[in-house]
Amino acid sequence: MIIQPVVNIAEICALKGVQNVVLSPGSRCAPLTIAFARHPKLNVRTVSDERAAAFIALGMALTTGKPTVLVCTSGTAALNYAPAVAEAYFQQVPLLILTADRPPEWIDQLDGQTIRQQKVYGQHIKQSYTFPVDFSHPDATWHSERLVSEALNETVSFPAGPVHINVPLREPFYPAPGEELVYSKQIKIIEEQALSFDLNQMQALSLQNKILRYSKIVVLAGHDQRDEALLRSLRTFADTTGAVVVGDIISNTHELPDLVRHQDVIFVNEAKEKLAQLQPDLLITFGKSIISKALKLYLRQHKPQAHWHIQPAGQVADTFQSLTKVLRCSSQSFFVSMAGSTKVNTIFSEAWKAADKAAADFLQQYTAGAPFSELPVVARVLQHLPEQSNLHLANSMSVRYANIIGLQAKQQVHVYANRGTSGIDGSTSTTVGCALTNPGITTLLTGDLAFFYDRNGLWHNYLPDNLRIILLNNHAGGIFRLIDGPKQQPELAPYFETTQALNAQNTARDFNLKYTTVETLGELEQALPGFFSANAGAGILEIFTDSPANAAAFEAYRVAARKLGL
Amino acid sequence: MIIQPVVNIAEICALKGVQNVVLSPGSRCAPLTIAFARHPKLNVRTVSDERAAAFIALGMALTTGKPTVLVCTSGTAALNYAPAVAEAYFQQVPLLILTADRPPEWIDQLDGQTIRQQKVYGQHIKQSYTFPVDFSHPDATWHSERLVSEALNETVSFPAGPVHINVPLREPFYPAPGEELVYSKQIKIIEEQALSFDLNQMQALSLQNKILRYSKIVVLAGHDQRDEALLRSLRTFADTTGAVVVGDIISNTHELPDLVRHQDVIFVNEAKEKLAQLQPDLLITFGKSIISKALKLYLRQHKPQAHWHIQPAGQVADTFQSLTKVLRCSSQSFFVSMAGSTKVNTIFSEAWKAADKAAADFLQQYTAGAPFSELPVVARVLQHLPEQSNLHLANSMSVRYANIIGLQAKQQVHVYANRGTSGIDGSTSTTVGCALTNPGITTLLTGDLAFFYDRNGLWHNYLPDNLRIILLNNHAGGIFRLIDGPKQQPELAPYFETTQALNAQNTARDFNLKYTTVETLGELEQALPGFFSANAGAGILEIFTDSPANAAAFEAYRVAARKLGL
Repeated sequence: MIIQPVVNIAEICALKGVQNVVLSPGSRCAPLTIAFARHPKLNVRTVSDERAAAFIALGMALTTGKPTVLVCTSGTAALNYAPAVAEAYFQQVPLLILTADRPPEWIDQLDGQTIRQQKVYGQHIKQSYTFPVDFSHPDATWHSERLVSEALNETVSFPAGPVHINVPLREPFYPAPGEELVYSKQIKIIEEQALSFDLNQMQALSLQNKILRYSKIVVLAGHDQRDEALLRSLRTFADTTGAVVVGDIISNTHELPDLVRHQDVIFVNEAKEKLAQLQPDLLITFGKSIISKALKLYLRQHKPQAHWHIQPAGQVADTFQSLTKVLRCSSQSFFVSMAGSTKVNTIFSEAWKAADKAAADFLQQYTAGAPFSELPVVARVLQHLPEQSNLHLANSMSVRYANIIGLQAKQQVHVYANRGTSGIDGSTSTTVGCALTNPGITTLLTGDLAFFYDRNGLWHNYLPDNLRIILLNNHAGGIFRLIDGPKQQPELAPYFETTQALNAQNTARDFNLKYTTVETLGELEQALPGFFSANAGAGILEIFTDSPANAAAFEAYRVAARKLGL
Repeated sequence: MIIQPVVNIAEICALKGVQNVVLSPGSRCAPLTIAFARHPKLNVRTVSDERAAAFIALGMALTTGKPTVLVCTSGTAALNYAPAVAEAYFQQVPLLILTADRPPEWIDQLDGQTIRQQKVYGQHIKQSYTFPVDFSHPDATWHSERLVSEALNETVSFPAGPVHINVPLREPFYPAPGEELVYSKQIKIIEEQALSFDLNQMQALSLQNKILRYSKIVVLAGHDQRDEALLRSLRTFADTTGAVVVGDIISNTHELPDLVRHQDVIFVNEAKEKLAQLQPDLLITFGKSIISKALKLYLRQHKPQAHWHIQPAGQVADTFQSLTKVLRCSSQSFFVSMAGSTKVNTIFSEAWKAADKAAADFLQQYTAGAPFSELPVVARVLQHLPEQSNLHLANSMSVRYANIIGLQAKQQVHVYANRGTSGIDGSTSTTVGCALTNPGITTLLTGDLAFFYDRNGLWHNYLPDNLRIILLNNHAGGIFRLIDGPKQQPELAPYFETTQALNAQNTARDFNLKYTTVETLGELEQALPGFFSANAGAGILEIFTDSPANAAAFEAYRVAARKLGL
């Protein structure tokens, strides 16, 4: 039987700009599957492991900026989406999740694939809806159309995020022979014009007055997508005021020439008096999380007099325990309005720039001469990244190493990382989702635990040619040998590092991926240009290192970084 | 720093009978990891993929009957447990889930691996607790000990199930050099003596009176663990009253010689008048779900006058839309009390037995002569199962095929299946958990989608020698070609079956499993005895069939079954 309101879900999605749909197979969801699969304007793919499917959808929403639709059957399928839904919630990525369900009268009646799906994503969802099950009253059709519009509007309204519609469905699920599926032409959709996030003149004047009280101003960019207009306004603000701009690799601000990007090196320094000179009196932040633990700890210990955080809407974190003002406007509007509004103390700003220069020189020297180990490996990988490519940094050490090294201003690389929840569970899938929806070379930098955890991100029929996987295989969760607590415990190898024996050769065979291994820096430098070439095809470059050797080399790096003259 | 109340969690678990702990690696959970890993009486293993870890713990709890403890770090780790937690909830399996968390003041502050973990399992958990974070007041220690006792009691009180303790932890996580971990000797635990589920004399007398009203009595056993005392009482009841006992393969009642076990064959029959004679006037059920869809539909269409369901506590399903009485007592007590209480119409009971005999003969004939396809393959696998072994039936076709074929009364095989939620997500892991905690040969019968979905169930350092995996690889979700709706849709191959190219050869290489393939019934019969021999070691027997050929053979089976003379 064809249920027209269910067919209309696909049409409303298409009318409201959805481009990509990721299905997982099931019978209960058949009316949704058929409605989406037959729609001429939607790109529909199917992925069997729902955990991977949801992270792939997340990657698609990241590159396209449009909500991606997920469709799964009833039961634990919906729960397997949960890790990606939480990541989308905290990373603020638009997803519309459609879970097929049994009708209400059959819940808890011991039928197969039946759980309690209403509000199943708990506190990690922007909104949860229940689709009507009975269309005998005409208001039900209006209700069904309205809630799909509302749900899609909600996915993209700031802060963007995941929205869930639970869709109870009664049998029969399939069109009868001869029954034809037609997308209704008489659908009313509800558009939503977003609030303007511009500062008004009065607000701008007031802030221009207030900022004059401060002479040591640091702007710190949090995790965010690359945004050219924002980068321009930020650069103008910095150039006209002398404010110091600091950004981790996941803030996508590396194209700013004067960006301070080596905070991981600077703030482990032993010269405490030198570091004390870098204390801001006004800290201005925008975006989401910060990776650099050294900088976080420094700012918590050296609190600014004032901390302004720019965020148009939503709950605000007090990351540095110094938050004094929440600015409800867009970052771009703020920086445009505040260009030239003050003059920062040049001794202060020069001290930051000198420290960053010293750190950059140190890193270059260190990674050129260091023994074969992960940090110099990552330095070479970042250096060889193709222009205008995408880079996904997996948790946990991959993104940390990359943040230590940083990207150069001339590198137009769009950086992604699942730092909403910082799990190791979906980096491969997220990268695949990005690669499927953006033509650029899309590189995943990952460790062995994260890679094998999410191996099912490769298990489907759509692996794209532009996918490149750089796998740092130390046969363990190497981070635990690098941090102070666990490395002194007898449980280190079995219970923290979790030694694992796999390499990616069999995985590459399974998924027809090109496979190259390297075991020296020389081999790596030889392999990278070919690996990254546009026509090389999808592949895995597996770099074998030794976890204790990595730990020793990283400790040598840390000792040197602590003693560096800033 | 050592937090004594956290150390005491491990001691309380050991004192209250916990034997097995499954950890997943993390830093936030280090105080828990160390407390459990060092405990001399606990068997502690570590599994990196939390989804697999939780299903492995479920398998352990199934074979041991004791709560298994799960420990993970903060963030999405906890969400990856969710599918297994829901399965444990509906399958009524005791799990104690300990999730490390940031302290309350650091939630939603953009720190890594931080989500909203309180009550994160929603409606699929028996109880959720928050462990105290501050122990400056002495009542906090009492609180902490009390709630671990309460939580463990709750996991096993009927109906058993999962219980969650969220454990917020502040740094430092690790013992300082020289700091020694000591399990407190002065712990008070709270024991709980369960309610007696026996019928009292008055209740028994009243039921003995009531049962006399009925002469066509069918007892239908739902999904449950093998229970010898129950089997004895059920047999005595059946022998003394003539009641018909019907049981699916997952009810573990196949050892009853007169059990009706071929309901999947009987109730697709076209001879409607013949089937109408099998309509009971009293249906007595116990246990959880029923697999046989044919029987379910039959009973919903041929409702008994009365349906008594035996269940000591908890929500009761009205699976056949005919429920009239809920009996709050144990099944064993009921059948002991009701032995000899009535005499069932022998024409009725003989009709059932004759139908089952006809179905059994038909199946034997059919599977002996059928072309190479999944149903005759499964018949041979079941026939060759070692005595006193364990059999896990994966969703979705594996368990259905096995239910059609059934086990013989002489086969002492303990059958497991994740029919709480009927997901394909954790069958391999659950089987591994069973195999790790029971010495018998433990066989997984699975399809390719379920197997590759849960490949990470094999990704750890503990694969046991008694594990046997029978993989029915038709390179698709073959069920969709067998059921009426999807096989007529143009979306069949790409969106329902989800054709997939993998075979298990590379997986076997990855995990050092013996690997055998067969492509004919002859090869299969030759391979099975060696594969199942006690010293063969852990292995995969991969049986390649063709999805359209399976569908054709299954259709031939169905046509023949419909026309069978009962």
